[in-house]
Amino acid sequence: MKTEALAFFDRVRPAIDASLDELLPAESARPSQIHRAMRYSIFAGGKRLRPALCVAGFSLFQDEIRPILTVASAIEMVHTYSLIHDDLPAMDDDDFRRGMPSCHAKFGEATAILAGDALLTLAFEILSSFHGFSDSAKLHAMAALARALGTRDGMIAGQVLDLEAEGHTPQKAQVEAIHAAKTGALLSTSVWIGAYLAGADESESQQILAYGRKIGLAFQIVDDVLDETATGSALGKTAGKDREHRKATYPAAIGIEESLRMVRQLTEEARQLVKPFGERGSILMEIAGFLETRCH
Amino acid sequence: MKTEALAFFDRVRPAIDASLDELLPAESARPSQIHRAMRYSIFAGGKRLRPALCVAGFSLFQDEIRPILTVASAIEMVHTYSLIHDDLPAMDDDDFRRGMPSCHAKFGEATAILAGDALLTLAFEILSSFHGFSDSAKLHAMAALARALGTRDGMIAGQVLDLEAEGHTPQKAQVEAIHAAKTGALLSTSVWIGAYLAGADESESQQILAYGRKIGLAFQIVDDVLDETATGSALGKTAGKDREHRKATYPAAIGIEESLRMVRQLTEEARQLVKPFGERGSILMEIAGFLETRCH
Repeated sequence: MKTEALAFFDRVRPAIDASLDELLPAESARPSQIHRAMRYSIFAGGKRLRPALCVAGFSLFQDEIRPILTVASAIEMVHTYSLIHDDLPAMDDDDFRRGMPSCHAKFGEATAILAGDALLTLAFEILSSFHGFSDSAKLHAMAALARALGTRDGMIAGQVLDLEAEGHTPQKAQVEAIHAAKTGALLSTSVWIGAYLAGADESESQQILAYGRKIGLAFQIVDDVLDETATGSALGKTAGKDREHRKATYPAAIGIEESLRMVRQLTEEARQLVKPFGERGSILMEIAGFLETRCH
Repeated sequence: MKTEALAFFDRVRPAIDASLDELLPAESARPSQIHRAMRYSIFAGGKRLRPALCVAGFSLFQDEIRPILTVASAIEMVHTYSLIHDDLPAMDDDDFRRGMPSCHAKFGEATAILAGDALLTLAFEILSSFHGFSDSAKLHAMAALARALGTRDGMIAGQVLDLEAEGHTPQKAQVEAIHAAKTGALLSTSVWIGAYLAGADESESQQILAYGRKIGLAFQIVDDVLDETATGSALGKTAGKDREHRKATYPAAIGIEESLRMVRQLTEEARQLVKPFGERGSILMEIAGFLETRCH
Protein backbone atom coordinates (compact mmCIF):
# COMPACT_ATOMS: atom_id res chain seq x y z
CA MET A 1 0.00 0.00 0.00
CA LYS A 2 2.75 2.43 0.99
CA THR A 3 4.59 1.97 -2.26
CA GLU A 4 2.43 4.19 -4.42
CA ALA A 5 2.82 7.20 -2.14
CA LEU A 6 6.56 6.63 -1.90
CA ALA A 7 6.84 6.30 -5.66
CA PHE A 8 4.89 9.55 -6.01
CA PHE A 9 7.23 11.37 -3.63
CA ASP A 10 10.25 9.92 -5.41
CA ARG A 11 8.94 11.20 -8.71
CA VAL A 12 7.82 14.63 -7.50
CA ARG A 13 10.72 15.53 -5.21
CA PRO A 14 13.38 15.87 -7.94
CA ALA A 15 10.96 17.89 -10.06
CA ILE A 16 10.33 20.27 -7.15
CA ASP A 17 14.03 20.50 -6.38
CA ALA A 18 14.86 21.32 -10.00
CA SER A 19 12.16 23.98 -10.02
CA LEU A 20 13.43 25.50 -6.76
CA ASP A 21 16.96 25.50 -8.12
CA GLU A 22 15.77 27.40 -11.17
CA LEU A 23 13.68 29.90 -9.22
CA LEU A 24 16.21 30.79 -6.50
CA PRO A 25 18.94 33.32 -7.26
CA ALA A 26 22.35 31.68 -7.76
CA GLU A 27 24.71 31.54 -4.80
CA SER A 28 27.09 33.71 -6.76
CA ALA A 29 24.46 36.45 -7.25
CA ARG A 30 25.31 39.50 -5.14
CA PRO A 31 24.83 39.82 -2.22
CA SER A 32 25.88 36.18 -2.11
CA GLN A 33 25.60 35.68 1.66
CA ILE A 34 21.81 35.94 1.61
CA HIS A 35 21.45 33.70 -1.44
CA ARG A 36 23.73 31.10 0.14
CA ALA A 37 21.58 31.13 3.27
CA MET A 38 18.33 30.84 1.30
CA ARG A 39 19.64 27.91 -0.73
CA TYR A 40 21.16 26.26 2.32
CA SER A 41 17.82 26.10 4.11
CA ILE A 42 15.83 25.19 1.01
CA PHE A 43 18.16 22.31 0.14
CA ALA A 44 18.69 21.08 3.71
CA GLY A 45 16.80 17.86 3.05
CA GLY A 46 13.14 18.74 3.45
CA LYS A 47 10.50 16.11 2.70
CA ARG A 48 8.76 18.48 0.26
CA LEU A 49 5.46 17.38 1.79
CA ARG A 50 3.60 20.64 1.09
CA PRO A 51 4.64 20.96 -2.57
CA ALA A 52 3.97 17.24 -3.02
CA LEU A 53 0.47 17.74 -1.64
CA CYS A 54 0.00 20.67 -4.00
CA VAL A 55 1.07 18.50 -6.94
CA ALA A 56 -1.13 15.62 -5.73
CA GLY A 57 -4.11 17.98 -5.52
CA PHE A 58 -3.38 19.16 -9.05
CA SER A 59 -3.06 15.56 -10.25
CA LEU A 60 -6.66 14.89 -9.20
CA PHE A 61 -7.75 16.66 -12.38
CA GLN A 62 -4.66 17.03 -14.60
CA ASP A 63 -2.22 14.56 -16.11
CA GLU A 64 0.78 16.88 -16.48
CA ILE A 65 2.41 18.08 -13.25
CA ARG A 66 4.73 20.62 -14.88
CA PRO A 67 2.27 23.57 -14.84
CA ILE A 68 1.95 23.44 -11.03
CA LEU A 69 5.64 23.11 -10.15
CA THR A 70 6.30 26.86 -9.83
CA VAL A 71 3.39 27.26 -7.42
CA ALA A 72 4.45 24.17 -5.46
CA SER A 73 7.99 25.58 -5.21
CA ALA A 74 6.72 28.92 -3.93
CA ILE A 75 4.83 26.99 -1.24
CA GLU A 76 8.05 25.25 -0.20
CA MET A 77 9.72 28.69 0.01
CA VAL A 78 7.14 30.03 2.44
CA HIS A 79 7.35 26.81 4.46
CA THR A 80 11.14 27.19 4.66
CA TYR A 81 10.79 30.84 5.68
CA SER A 82 8.62 29.69 8.59
CA LEU A 83 11.17 27.06 9.68
CA ILE A 84 14.04 29.57 9.60
CA HIS A 85 12.16 32.08 11.73
CA ASP A 86 10.80 29.37 14.07
CA ASP A 87 14.32 28.16 14.82
CA LEU A 88 15.62 31.62 15.80
CA PRO A 89 16.95 32.08 19.36
CA ALA A 90 14.05 34.40 20.21
CA MET A 91 11.55 31.78 19.02
CA ASP A 92 12.06 28.00 19.44
CA ASP A 93 15.84 28.47 19.74
CA ASP A 94 16.82 25.33 17.84
CA ASP A 95 20.37 25.10 16.51
CA PHE A 96 19.62 21.96 14.51
CA ARG A 97 17.12 21.14 11.82
CA ARG A 98 17.04 17.89 9.86
CA GLY A 99 20.38 16.91 11.37
CA MET A 100 22.16 20.05 10.15
CA PRO A 101 22.87 23.44 11.76
CA SER A 102 19.80 25.63 11.43
CA CYS A 103 20.08 28.78 9.31
CA HIS A 104 21.03 31.15 12.15
CA ALA A 105 23.53 28.62 13.58
CA LYS A 106 25.21 28.50 10.20
CA PHE A 107 24.92 32.10 8.94
CA GLY A 108 24.21 34.19 12.03
CA GLU A 109 20.95 35.61 13.27
CA ALA A 110 20.78 38.72 11.09
CA THR A 111 21.23 36.74 7.87
CA ALA A 112 18.72 34.12 9.04
CA ILE A 113 16.05 36.73 9.73
CA LEU A 114 16.67 38.26 6.30
CA ALA A 115 16.79 34.87 4.55
CA GLY A 116 13.35 34.05 5.98
CA ASP A 117 12.03 37.46 4.93
CA ALA A 118 13.57 36.97 1.49
CA LEU A 119 11.99 33.55 0.88
CA LEU A 120 8.56 34.87 1.83
CA THR A 121 9.04 37.87 -0.45
CA LEU A 122 10.40 35.80 -3.33
CA ALA A 123 7.44 33.42 -3.13
CA PHE A 124 5.05 36.31 -3.70
CA GLU A 125 7.24 37.81 -6.40
CA ILE A 126 7.16 34.49 -8.26
CA LEU A 127 3.43 33.94 -7.77
CA SER A 128 2.64 37.41 -9.08
CA SER A 129 4.86 37.15 -12.14
CA PHE A 130 5.00 33.55 -13.44
CA HIS A 131 3.24 32.49 -16.62
CA GLY A 132 0.36 30.05 -16.39
CA PHE A 133 -3.23 29.95 -15.16
CA SER A 134 -5.55 32.94 -15.32
CA ASP A 135 -4.76 36.18 -13.51
CA SER A 136 -7.88 35.84 -11.39
CA ALA A 137 -6.99 32.25 -10.38
CA LYS A 138 -3.47 33.34 -9.44
CA LEU A 139 -4.77 36.18 -7.27
CA HIS A 140 -7.27 33.86 -5.58
CA ALA A 141 -4.56 31.30 -4.84
CA MET A 142 -2.19 33.98 -3.49
CA ALA A 143 -4.88 35.42 -1.23
CA ALA A 144 -5.55 31.94 0.19
CA LEU A 145 -1.84 31.30 0.68
CA ALA A 146 -1.28 34.64 2.42
CA ARG A 147 -4.26 33.97 4.66
CA ALA A 148 -2.87 30.52 5.56
CA LEU A 149 0.33 32.27 6.66
CA GLY A 150 -1.41 35.06 8.55
CA THR A 151 -2.49 36.12 12.00
CA ARG A 152 -6.19 35.31 11.96
CA ASP A 153 -6.28 31.55 11.56
CA GLY A 154 -2.97 30.97 9.80
CA MET A 155 0.58 30.04 10.66
CA ILE A 156 1.55 33.20 12.55
CA ALA A 157 -1.60 32.89 14.68
CA GLY A 158 -0.52 29.34 15.52
CA GLN A 159 3.00 30.41 16.36
CA VAL A 160 1.79 33.18 18.69
CA LEU A 161 -0.72 30.88 20.41
CA ASP A 162 2.03 28.28 20.74
CA LEU A 163 4.43 30.73 22.42
CA GLU A 164 1.63 31.96 24.70
CA ALA A 165 0.69 28.42 25.72
CA GLU A 166 4.24 27.46 26.73
CA GLY A 167 4.56 26.58 30.38
CA HIS A 168 0.86 25.93 30.96
CA THR A 169 -0.91 22.57 31.14
CA PRO A 170 -2.47 22.30 27.70
CA GLN A 171 -6.12 21.51 27.00
CA LYS A 172 -7.03 19.37 23.98
CA ALA A 173 -9.14 22.09 22.31
CA GLN A 174 -6.31 24.59 22.74
CA VAL A 175 -3.72 22.24 21.23
CA GLU A 176 -6.05 21.55 18.33
CA ALA A 177 -6.52 25.28 17.66
CA ILE A 178 -2.75 25.85 17.76
CA HIS A 179 -2.01 22.96 15.43
CA ALA A 180 -4.81 23.80 13.02
CA ALA A 181 -3.36 27.27 12.60
CA LYS A 182 0.35 26.51 12.84
CA THR A 183 0.51 23.45 10.57
CA GLY A 184 -2.97 22.68 9.29
CA ALA A 185 -3.64 25.93 7.47
CA LEU A 186 -0.62 25.76 5.15
CA LEU A 187 -0.89 21.98 4.60
CA SER A 188 -4.56 22.12 3.68
CA THR A 189 -4.08 25.25 1.58
CA SER A 190 -1.24 23.53 -0.32
CA VAL A 191 -3.41 20.64 -1.48
CA TRP A 192 -6.36 22.98 -2.05
CA ILE A 193 -4.34 25.34 -4.28
CA GLY A 194 -3.27 22.39 -6.44
CA ALA A 195 -6.83 21.15 -6.83
CA TYR A 196 -8.24 24.64 -7.35
CA LEU A 197 -5.75 25.56 -10.08
CA ALA A 198 -6.43 22.21 -11.73
CA GLY A 199 -10.09 23.12 -12.02
CA ALA A 200 -11.82 21.64 -8.95
CA ASP A 201 -15.36 22.89 -8.49
CA GLU A 202 -16.55 24.41 -5.22
CA SER A 203 -17.74 21.16 -3.66
CA GLU A 204 -14.58 19.27 -4.66
CA SER A 205 -12.48 22.14 -3.29
CA GLN A 206 -14.23 21.93 0.06
CA GLN A 207 -13.64 18.18 0.25
CA ILE A 208 -9.95 18.61 -0.53
CA LEU A 209 -9.66 21.35 2.06
CA ALA A 210 -11.26 19.11 4.69
CA TYR A 211 -8.88 16.31 3.71
CA GLY A 212 -5.94 18.70 4.12
CA ARG A 213 -7.10 19.76 7.56
CA LYS A 214 -7.38 16.14 8.72
CA ILE A 215 -3.95 15.10 7.53
CA GLY A 216 -2.47 18.38 8.73
CA LEU A 217 -3.67 17.65 12.23
CA ALA A 218 -2.60 14.00 12.02
CA PHE A 219 0.82 15.10 10.78
CA GLN A 220 1.31 17.47 13.70
CA ILE A 221 0.19 14.90 16.27
CA VAL A 222 2.72 12.47 14.81
CA ASP A 223 5.37 15.18 15.14
CA ASP A 224 4.46 15.72 18.78
CA VAL A 225 4.57 11.97 19.48
CA LEU A 226 7.93 11.60 17.74
CA ASP A 227 9.37 14.44 19.83
CA GLU A 228 8.42 12.40 22.92
CA THR A 229 9.46 8.95 21.73
CA ALA A 230 12.25 9.26 19.15
CA THR A 231 15.94 9.96 19.67
CA GLY A 232 17.62 13.17 18.57
CA SER A 233 19.55 11.47 15.78
CA ALA A 234 16.36 9.91 14.40
CA LEU A 235 14.61 13.28 14.49
CA GLY A 236 17.52 15.32 13.14
CA LYS A 237 16.83 17.86 15.86
CA THR A 238 16.90 18.03 19.63
CA ALA A 239 14.38 15.49 20.99
CA GLY A 240 12.23 16.04 24.06
CA LYS A 241 12.29 19.84 23.65
CA ASP A 242 8.51 20.10 23.67
CA ARG A 243 8.26 18.50 27.10
CA GLU A 244 11.21 20.51 28.43
CA HIS A 245 9.57 23.79 27.35
CA ARG A 246 6.13 22.54 28.40
CA LYS A 247 4.83 23.07 24.88
CA ALA A 248 1.16 22.60 24.05
CA THR A 249 1.30 19.14 22.45
CA TYR A 250 -1.15 16.30 22.01
CA PRO A 251 0.84 13.85 24.17
CA ALA A 252 0.88 16.47 26.95
CA ALA A 253 -2.86 17.06 26.62
CA ILE A 254 -4.23 13.55 26.06
CA GLY A 255 -1.31 11.11 26.36
CA ILE A 256 0.54 9.12 23.72
CA GLU A 257 -1.95 6.25 23.36
CA GLU A 258 -4.91 8.54 22.79
CA SER A 259 -2.78 10.70 20.44
CA LEU A 260 -2.03 7.66 18.29
CA ARG A 261 -5.71 6.69 18.27
CA MET A 262 -6.54 10.17 17.00
CA VAL A 263 -3.94 9.88 14.25
CA ARG A 264 -5.55 6.63 13.06
CA GLN A 265 -9.00 8.16 13.16
CA LEU A 266 -8.01 11.37 11.33
CA THR A 267 -6.15 9.36 8.70
CA GLU A 268 -9.18 7.17 8.08
CA GLU A 269 -11.48 10.20 7.84
CA ALA A 270 -9.05 11.85 5.41
CA ARG A 271 -9.00 8.71 3.26
CA GLN A 272 -12.78 8.61 3.12
CA LEU A 273 -12.83 12.24 1.93
CA VAL A 274 -10.77 11.49 -1.16
CA LYS A 275 -12.29 8.07 -1.91
CA PRO A 276 -14.92 9.60 -4.21
CA PHE A 277 -12.13 10.67 -6.57
CA GLY A 278 -11.51 6.98 -7.37
CA GLU A 279 -8.23 6.07 -9.04
CA ARG A 280 -7.20 9.76 -9.21
CA GLY A 281 -7.55 10.08 -5.43
CA SER A 282 -5.36 7.08 -4.66
CA ILE A 283 -2.20 9.17 -4.19
CA LEU A 284 -3.88 11.39 -1.61
CA MET A 285 -5.23 8.25 0.11
CA GLU A 286 -1.74 6.78 0.19
CA ILE A 287 -0.16 10.00 1.46
CA ALA A 288 -2.60 9.96 4.38
CA GLY A 289 -1.65 6.37 5.17
CA PHE A 290 2.00 7.12 4.71
CA LEU A 291 1.98 9.98 7.22
CA GLU A 292 0.40 7.66 9.79
CA THR A 293 3.22 5.12 9.45
CA ARG A 294 5.84 7.67 10.52
CA CYS A 295 4.87 6.79 14.08
CA HIS A 296 5.71 3.13 13.74
CA MET B 1 6.64 76.87 -1.83
CA LYS B 2 6.68 74.29 0.94
CA THR B 3 3.04 74.87 1.76
CA GLU B 4 1.55 72.82 -1.07
CA ALA B 5 3.52 69.69 -0.15
CA LEU B 6 2.66 70.10 3.52
CA ALA B 7 -1.00 70.62 2.70
CA PHE B 8 -0.88 67.47 0.58
CA PHE B 9 0.64 65.44 3.43
CA ASP B 10 -1.89 66.88 5.85
CA ARG B 11 -4.71 65.82 3.56
CA VAL B 12 -3.36 62.37 2.68
CA ARG B 13 -2.06 61.24 6.08
CA PRO B 14 -5.46 60.95 7.81
CA ALA B 15 -6.86 59.12 4.77
CA ILE B 16 -3.98 56.62 4.89
CA ASP B 17 -4.35 56.21 8.64
CA ALA B 18 -8.07 55.56 8.33
CA SER B 19 -7.41 53.00 5.61
CA LEU B 20 -4.73 51.27 7.70
CA ASP B 21 -7.08 51.19 10.66
CA GLU B 22 -9.71 49.52 8.52
CA LEU B 23 -7.33 46.99 6.98
CA LEU B 24 -5.51 45.87 10.14
CA PRO B 25 -7.14 43.28 12.41
CA ALA B 26 -8.56 44.81 15.58
CA GLU B 27 -6.41 44.71 18.72
CA SER B 28 -9.06 42.55 20.30
CA ALA B 29 -8.87 39.93 17.52
CA ARG B 30 -7.23 36.74 18.79
CA PRO B 31 -4.30 36.29 19.17
CA SER B 32 -4.39 39.87 20.40
CA GLN B 33 -0.67 40.20 21.26
CA ILE B 34 0.37 40.10 17.60
CA HIS B 35 -2.35 42.49 16.48
CA ARG B 36 -1.41 44.92 19.26
CA ALA B 37 2.22 44.81 18.12
CA MET B 38 1.30 45.32 14.44
CA ARG B 39 -0.91 48.30 15.25
CA TYR B 40 1.63 49.74 17.69
CA SER B 41 4.33 49.92 15.03
CA ILE B 42 1.99 51.08 12.27
CA PHE B 43 0.58 53.90 14.39
CA ALA B 44 3.89 54.94 16.00
CA GLY B 45 3.95 58.25 14.17
CA GLY B 46 5.37 57.50 10.74
CA LYS B 47 5.54 60.27 8.17
CA ARG B 48 3.62 58.09 5.66
CA LEU B 49 6.10 59.23 3.00
CA ARG B 50 5.85 56.07 0.86
CA PRO B 51 2.05 55.90 0.76
CA ALA B 52 1.95 59.67 0.20
CA LEU B 53 4.29 59.24 -2.78
CA CYS B 54 2.05 56.46 -4.07
CA VAL B 55 -0.98 58.72 -3.79
CA ALA B 56 0.94 61.61 -5.39
CA GLY B 57 1.91 59.34 -8.31
CA PHE B 58 -1.71 58.34 -8.69
CA SER B 59 -2.81 61.98 -8.55
CA LEU B 60 -0.71 62.74 -11.64
CA PHE B 61 -3.50 61.16 -13.70
CA GLN B 62 -6.54 60.81 -11.43
CA ASP B 63 -8.61 63.26 -9.41
CA GLU B 64 -9.95 60.86 -6.79
CA ILE B 65 -7.39 59.44 -4.32
CA ARG B 66 -9.74 56.87 -2.73
CA PRO B 67 -9.07 54.04 -5.23
CA ILE B 68 -5.34 53.97 -4.41
CA LEU B 69 -5.58 54.12 -0.60
CA THR B 70 -5.61 50.34 -0.09
CA VAL B 71 -2.46 49.92 -2.18
CA ALA B 72 -0.78 52.85 -0.42
CA SER B 73 -1.65 51.31 2.95
CA ALA B 74 -0.18 47.95 1.93
CA ILE B 75 3.02 49.81 1.02
CA GLU B 76 3.13 51.37 4.50
CA MET B 77 2.70 47.88 5.98
CA VAL B 78 5.73 46.50 4.15
CA HIS B 79 7.72 49.59 5.11
CA THR B 80 6.79 49.08 8.77
CA TYR B 81 7.72 45.38 8.55
CA SER B 82 11.18 46.45 7.38
CA LEU B 83 11.57 48.93 10.26
CA ILE B 84 10.56 46.33 12.86
CA HIS B 85 13.05 43.78 11.55
CA ASP B 86 15.79 46.41 11.08
CA ASP B 87 15.51 47.45 14.72
CA LEU B 88 15.93 43.88 16.07
CA PRO B 89 18.91 43.20 18.36
CA ALA B 90 20.50 40.95 15.72
CA MET B 91 20.19 43.72 13.12
CA ASP B 92 20.60 47.44 13.93
CA ASP B 93 19.74 46.83 17.60
CA ASP B 94 17.77 50.00 18.15
CA ASP B 95 15.45 50.20 21.15
CA PHE B 96 13.89 53.45 20.01
CA ARG B 97 12.10 54.49 16.87
CA ARG B 98 10.40 57.86 16.40
CA GLY B 99 10.89 58.61 20.09
CA MET B 100 9.06 55.48 21.25
CA PRO B 101 10.25 52.00 22.23
CA SER B 102 10.76 49.94 19.09
CA CYS B 103 8.53 46.91 18.58
CA HIS B 104 10.86 44.35 20.20
CA ALA B 105 11.60 46.71 23.12
CA LYS B 106 7.87 46.95 23.76
CA PHE B 107 6.62 43.44 22.92
CA GLY B 108 9.70 41.21 23.03
CA GLU B 109 11.78 39.84 20.22
CA ALA B 110 9.62 36.86 19.24
CA THR B 111 6.50 38.99 18.85
CA ALA B 112 8.45 41.64 16.93
CA ILE B 113 9.80 39.10 14.44
CA LEU B 114 6.29 37.73 13.95
CA ALA B 115 4.72 41.20 13.74
CA GLY B 116 7.11 42.05 10.90
CA ASP B 117 6.36 38.77 9.17
CA ALA B 118 2.65 39.38 9.65
CA LEU B 119 2.67 42.89 8.15
CA LEU B 120 4.53 41.64 5.08
CA THR B 121 2.09 38.75 4.71
CA LEU B 122 -0.97 40.92 5.28
CA ALA B 123 0.18 43.39 2.63
CA PHE B 124 0.24 40.63 0.03
CA GLU B 125 -3.06 39.20 1.26
CA ILE B 126 -4.67 42.62 0.82
CA LEU B 127 -3.08 43.28 -2.59
CA SER B 128 -4.22 39.91 -3.91
CA SER B 129 -7.80 40.24 -2.67
CA PHE B 130 -8.91 43.89 -2.73
CA HIS B 131 -11.40 45.19 -5.28
CA GLY B 132 -10.25 47.71 -7.83
CA PHE B 133 -8.02 47.90 -10.92
CA SER B 134 -7.62 45.00 -13.32
CA ASP B 135 -6.24 41.63 -12.21
CA SER B 136 -3.28 41.98 -14.53
CA ALA B 137 -2.42 45.47 -13.22
CA LYS B 138 -2.62 44.22 -9.64
CA LEU B 139 -0.27 41.32 -10.40
CA HIS B 140 2.17 43.63 -12.16
CA ALA B 141 2.18 46.06 -9.21
CA MET B 142 2.65 43.22 -6.71
CA ALA B 143 5.57 41.78 -8.68
CA ALA B 144 7.25 45.19 -8.72
CA LEU B 145 6.65 45.66 -5.01
CA ALA B 146 8.01 42.22 -4.14
CA ARG B 147 11.07 42.90 -6.27
CA ALA B 148 11.64 46.23 -4.52
CA LEU B 149 11.68 44.31 -1.24
CA GLY B 150 13.89 41.50 -2.49
CA THR B 151 17.47 40.30 -2.56
CA ARG B 152 18.56 41.26 -6.07
CA ASP B 153 18.33 45.03 -6.08
CA GLY B 154 15.71 45.56 -3.40
CA MET B 155 15.50 46.31 0.28
CA ILE B 156 16.90 43.04 1.60
CA ALA B 157 19.88 43.33 -0.76
CA GLY B 158 20.51 46.80 0.69
CA GLN B 159 20.21 45.55 4.24
CA VAL B 160 22.69 42.71 3.62
CA LEU B 161 25.17 45.01 1.87
CA ASP B 162 24.78 47.49 4.71
CA LEU B 163 25.58 44.86 7.36
CA GLU B 164 28.54 43.62 5.29
CA ALA B 165 29.93 47.12 4.88
CA GLU B 166 29.90 47.90 8.61
CA GLY B 167 33.34 48.59 10.05
CA HIS B 168 35.00 49.34 6.70
CA THR B 169 35.81 52.75 5.24
CA PRO B 170 33.00 53.26 2.75
CA GLN B 171 33.42 54.22 -0.91
CA LYS B 172 30.89 56.55 -2.54
CA ALA B 173 29.81 53.99 -5.17
CA GLN B 174 29.28 51.36 -2.49
CA VAL B 175 27.19 53.69 -0.32
CA GLU B 176 25.13 54.63 -3.36
CA ALA B 177 24.46 50.95 -4.19
CA ILE B 178 23.43 50.23 -0.60
CA HIS B 179 21.11 53.23 -0.41
CA ALA B 180 19.59 52.63 -3.85
CA ALA B 181 18.63 49.12 -2.76
CA LYS B 182 17.79 49.73 0.89
CA THR B 183 15.71 52.91 0.55
CA GLY B 184 15.53 53.86 -3.11
CA ALA B 185 13.85 50.73 -4.45
CA LEU B 186 10.77 50.92 -2.25
CA LEU B 187 10.48 54.72 -2.46
CA SER B 188 10.67 54.78 -6.25
CA THR B 189 8.39 51.75 -6.57
CA SER B 190 5.82 53.45 -4.32
CA VAL B 191 5.47 56.47 -6.58
CA TRP B 192 5.70 54.28 -9.69
CA ILE B 193 2.87 51.97 -8.53
CA GLY B 194 0.62 54.97 -7.99
CA ALA B 195 1.35 56.37 -11.45
CA TYR B 196 1.13 52.97 -13.13
CA LEU B 197 -2.24 52.10 -11.59
CA ALA B 198 -3.50 55.56 -12.55
CA GLY B 199 -2.73 54.80 -16.18
CA ALA B 200 0.78 56.18 -16.84
CA ASP B 201 2.21 55.04 -20.16
CA GLU B 202 5.62 53.39 -20.41
CA SER B 203 7.59 56.62 -20.93
CA GLU B 204 5.78 58.42 -18.11
CA SER B 205 6.35 55.42 -15.85
CA GLN B 206 10.07 55.51 -16.51
CA GLN B 207 10.22 59.22 -15.72
CA ILE B 208 8.37 58.70 -12.45
CA LEU B 209 10.65 55.81 -11.54
CA ALA B 210 13.73 57.97 -12.19
CA TYR B 211 12.20 60.73 -10.07
CA GLY B 212 11.63 58.21 -7.27
CA ARG B 213 15.24 57.03 -7.43
CA LYS B 214 16.56 60.60 -7.17
CA ILE B 215 14.45 61.57 -4.18
CA GLY B 216 15.03 58.15 -2.58
CA LEU B 217 18.75 58.74 -2.66
CA ALA B 218 18.39 62.36 -1.51
CA PHE B 219 16.15 61.20 1.33
CA GLN B 220 18.70 58.66 2.52
CA ILE B 221 21.60 61.14 2.34
CA VAL B 222 19.55 63.55 4.46
CA ASP B 223 18.96 60.72 6.94
CA ASP B 224 22.70 60.05 7.11
CA VAL B 225 23.48 63.73 7.61
CA LEU B 226 20.85 64.06 10.33
CA ASP B 227 22.32 61.07 12.16
CA GLU B 228 25.61 62.99 12.27
CA THR B 229 24.32 66.44 13.08
CA ALA B 230 21.03 66.17 14.97
CA THR B 231 20.39 65.33 18.59
CA GLY B 232 18.73 62.10 19.73
CA SER B 233 15.57 63.86 20.86
CA ALA B 234 15.23 65.62 17.50
CA LEU B 235 15.70 62.31 15.68
CA GLY B 236 13.48 60.25 17.95
CA LYS B 237 16.18 57.61 17.96
CA THR B 238 19.76 57.26 19.13
CA ALA B 239 21.92 59.81 17.25
CA GLY B 240 25.45 59.16 16.05
CA LYS B 241 24.89 55.38 15.80
CA ASP B 242 26.02 55.27 12.18
CA ARG B 243 29.43 56.68 13.03
CA GLU B 244 29.74 54.51 16.13
CA HIS B 245 29.07 51.35 14.07
CA ARG B 246 31.13 52.67 11.17
CA LYS B 247 28.14 52.37 8.86
CA ALA B 248 28.44 53.01 5.14
CA THR B 249 27.00 56.54 4.99
CA TYR B 250 27.41 59.50 2.68
CA PRO B 251 28.98 61.76 5.32
CA ALA B 252 31.53 59.00 6.03
CA ALA B 253 32.29 58.55 2.33
CA ILE B 254 32.29 62.14 1.04
CA GLY B 255 31.83 64.44 4.06
CA ILE B 256 28.83 66.50 5.16
CA GLU B 257 29.34 69.49 2.83
CA GLU B 258 29.57 67.34 -0.29
CA SER B 259 26.61 65.24 0.93
CA LEU B 260 24.47 68.36 1.19
CA ARG B 261 25.56 69.45 -2.28
CA MET B 262 24.44 66.07 -3.63
CA VAL B 263 21.05 66.41 -1.94
CA ARG B 264 20.53 69.76 -3.64
CA GLN B 265 21.59 68.36 -7.01
CA LEU B 266 19.41 65.23 -6.75
CA THR B 267 16.44 67.31 -5.64
CA GLU B 268 16.83 69.64 -8.60
CA GLU B 269 17.15 66.71 -11.03
CA ALA B 270 14.06 65.10 -9.51
CA ARG B 271 12.12 68.34 -9.91
CA GLN B 272 13.11 68.58 -13.57
CA LEU B 273 11.83 65.03 -14.15
CA VAL B 274 8.29 65.88 -13.04
CA LYS B 275 8.17 69.36 -14.54
CA PRO B 276 6.69 68.05 -17.82
CA PHE B 277 3.55 67.00 -15.89
CA GLY B 278 2.76 70.69 -15.34
CA GLU B 279 0.23 71.59 -12.67
CA ARG B 280 -0.36 67.87 -11.91
CA GLY B 281 3.33 67.38 -11.17
CA SER B 282 3.54 70.24 -8.68
CA ILE B 283 2.97 68.02 -5.65
CA LEU B 284 5.84 65.73 -6.61
CA MET B 285 8.01 68.81 -7.22
CA GLU B 286 7.13 70.15 -3.80
CA ILE B 287 7.74 66.82 -2.09
CA ALA B 288 11.26 66.79 -3.54
CA GLY B 289 11.88 70.29 -2.24
CA PHE B 290 10.33 69.45 1.08
CA LEU B 291 12.65 66.47 1.63
CA GLU B 292 15.64 68.72 1.01
CA THR B 293 14.59 71.17 3.71
CA ARG B 294 14.73 68.46 6.41
CA CYS B 295 18.47 69.21 6.55
CA HIS B 296 18.10 72.86 7.41
